[in-house]
Amino acid sequence: MEPRRAIADLRELDRLTGGPDGAQRLCWTDDWVRARAFLRDRLGEVGGVSIDEDEAGNLWAVLPGELDGTLAVGSHVDSVPNGGWLDGALGVMAGVEVLRSAAAGTADGPRHSLTLVDFADEEGARFGRSLFGSSAVAGTLEPERLEPLRDADGRSVGEVLGEHGVHLDRAGAAATRREGLIGYLELHIEQGPVLERERVPVAAVSGTAGVERPRFTFAGQASHAGTTPMELRRDAGLAAGQTALAVERIARGHDGVGTTGVLRLEPGIPTAVAGRSELVVDLRHPRTEPLAAMIAEAREAARDVAADRGCEVTEAEIWTIEPIPFDERLVAAALEAAGTERVVPSGALHDAAEMARHVPVVMLFAPSTDGISHAKEEDTPEPDLERAIAAFGRLALRVLRGEVL
Amino acid sequence: MEPRRAIADLRELDRLTGGPDGAQRLCWTDDWVRARAFLRDRLGEVGGVSIDEDEAGNLWAVLPGELDGTLAVGSHVDSVPNGGWLDGALGVMAGVEVLRSAAAGTADGPRHSLTLVDFADEEGARFGRSLFGSSAVAGTLEPERLEPLRDADGRSVGEVLGEHGVHLDRAGAAATRREGLIGYLELHIEQGPVLERERVPVAAVSGTAGVERPRFTFAGQASHAGTTPMELRRDAGLAAGQTALAVERIARGHDGVGTTGVLRLEPGIPTAVAGRSELVVDLRHPRTEPLAAMIAEAREAARDVAADRGCEVTEAEIWTIEPIPFDERLVAAALEAAGTERVVPSGALHDAAEMARHVPVVMLFAPSTDGISHAKEEDTPEPDLERAIAAFGRLALRVLRGEVL
Repeated sequence: MEPRRAIADLRELDRLTGGPDGAQRLCWTDDWVRARAFLRDRLGEVGGVSIDEDEAGNLWAVLPGELDGTLAVGSHVDSVPNGGWLDGALGVMAGVEVLRSAAAGTADGPRHSLTLVDFADEEGARFGRSLFGSSAVAGTLEPERLEPLRDADGRSVGEVLGEHGVHLDRAGAAATRREGLIGYLELHIEQGPVLERERVPVAAVSGTAGVERPRFTFAGQASHAGTTPMELRRDAGLAAGQTALAVERIARGHDGVGTTGVLRLEPGIPTAVAGRSELVVDLRHPRTEPLAAMIAEAREAARDVAADRGCEVTEAEIWTIEPIPFDERLVAAALEAAGTERVVPSGALHDAAEMARHVPVVMLFAPSTDGISHAKEEDTPEPDLERAIAAFGRLALRVLRGEVL
Repeated sequence: MEPRRAIADLRELDRLTGGPDGAQRLCWTDDWVRARAFLRDRLGEVGGVSIDEDEAGNLWAVLPGELDGTLAVGSHVDSVPNGGWLDGALGVMAGVEVLRSAAAGTADGPRHSLTLVDFADEEGARFGRSLFGSSAVAGTLEPERLEPLRDADGRSVGEVLGEHGVHLDRAGAAATRREGLIGYLELHIEQGPVLERERVPVAAVSGTAGVERPRFTFAGQASHAGTTPMELRRDAGLAAGQTALAVERIARGHDGVGTTGVLRLEPGIPTAVAGRSELVVDLRHPRTEPLAAMIAEAREAARDVAADRGCEVTEAEIWTIEPIPFDERLVAAALEAAGTERVVPSGALHDAAEMARHVPVVMLFAPSTDGISHAKEEDTPEPDLERAIAAFGRLALRVLRGEVL
């Protein structure tokens, strides 16, 4: 493993597909196709690797081995608009380096087959559906829920994906790709501030947090800001604000995270008490029971606030996923490879969460400078990147040799 | 005075310019021109009235009298989009009935001249500048602040008003219209729930509340909803929500009203802690000192909340107007004419506030069903309308005879 080669590839990819506003590898666009072409170039330079794409647009590069079964390593080259150079790309380019290393015989003896996977549309930034490619492999993609989605230009998922040879009704066939897989490993940046604060250059990830993401809608009574006495108001905006503050308290109380990232008022003008409001709450916890308590308390808070303020509240589920623990053997091996005792849960979702439904999975996290991600400022100090990529290589090679699973 | 004639005129105006979604007399549109044509028709039926429009688009209909000086009565026929049938129109049609009554000799003896004024663009619904016509008469219109304004179609004030013969740089000449005025009387609906609750069919208005309308902007740090621990967040959205709740407490503490009708988050997506937020606060009080205390406390709350949450806060003044008391002699006469002891402050602004800068003014309020206004549901029970119009007529005739001022 030569981590600096992976870093050089990342820099080159950034040069090809980034700009003054950050990475522009939005899935199903020309920049994404350019990133894929670069990836294919690099993979083409590794001897004995066969490359193809599955029905969901995931790219697979396979290096056959002597032992039964295939270890997958990977992540995604797609980015959010104005994204960072490392989110997703780090895991893919580290995976390329693992392939190079294995092809060059570093495995030193018989090993499993190795496949690098670059999942399509992990970010979901264009149509709002994250983990597209990995959920197709995991069998959790529901094409009928994607069909109505449109991008900002009003183009349908079907139309856009069709231009890339991907058809919603056939994407599920990518599930055959998980046959024969013995495990999945992914290196990613943390996208949060914890490792940097703790000065940990690489940590093992215990699993992905469960998410409860409800939309609460309050219906009160729009009324004139000047003529409606305070005691006669049914202010849906204040109900929303109060609920957002309750969500914060609830998350703190359970050592989880709780966010109100969307809060809208109607009519939304200075001279009217809000008659209607909507907030989207995102609750996360690595364990099932506290997450269940958090969503229950958030619902109760919304109901209580609504009752206090003479509003009606309704709830719609936008998204929910259970906590997904990674494989304990792989977590132990990851700690050993990383030379650390630090295990962190992942608050963000990753392709690894979909893969973990079927095969043993672990992730490694590299720190994120200032905790920033999904922005051009996204970065990790190069020494930390080197250590993280090297640790990832050690872990992959041990698994490839059949020493872990 | 025959109040039922005024009500019939209101119904006919509503039929001509309203629809299933409510009144559509948005100023400087065809529906508004149609409303004006209807008004001219009705005025044309009154003998001895001369009609013209001033440089700000206000319509004046003058009935000469024997005494020196002119009493003005009026309001505005323009409405918000999807507005109600009474807001503004009530005062204009009641004014037409006063004209009819005076022209028919009901004044019974020498009287002042009488002018009905239909102010242009009271609502400001198209360009965001309320009290256009009356502020031109009062001399408070600042054309340079209007020039940059655009409507929803991107058309400028200058372009749109020009089509109606109104030119920003000459609108201020309407100020000559206040020469010789001895007073201004306006009948309006309350647009709030107080009179209905108290079963008062018509009340005198003591003046208009002062308004402080700042925009607070909080700058925190946008970060990932899943990966940013609660204790490391700088959540600008929660800072906004907390400030909105403080505004409510402050308004209650001073017996005023305080509203956060605008609250926006950026980036405004479920998976990101808001890095920036904006709220527009509207504080009102009929007296100067409590209003000053309210804005001071709101600023302090915003600063404290920002400091607590590691955010920066900035403030911009959107609008401010001092409390404007009406004339005590006219308020007393209004109470007598209305046969009530109920005096209420007006939380909403009215053309009367601009006129009160220069001449003695009073308003009468009729109740609003369920306190609703600026909506198709806007209504007042017909018996209350009749009593309010009759009271307005009695008041106007006493002033016309020189018995009050």
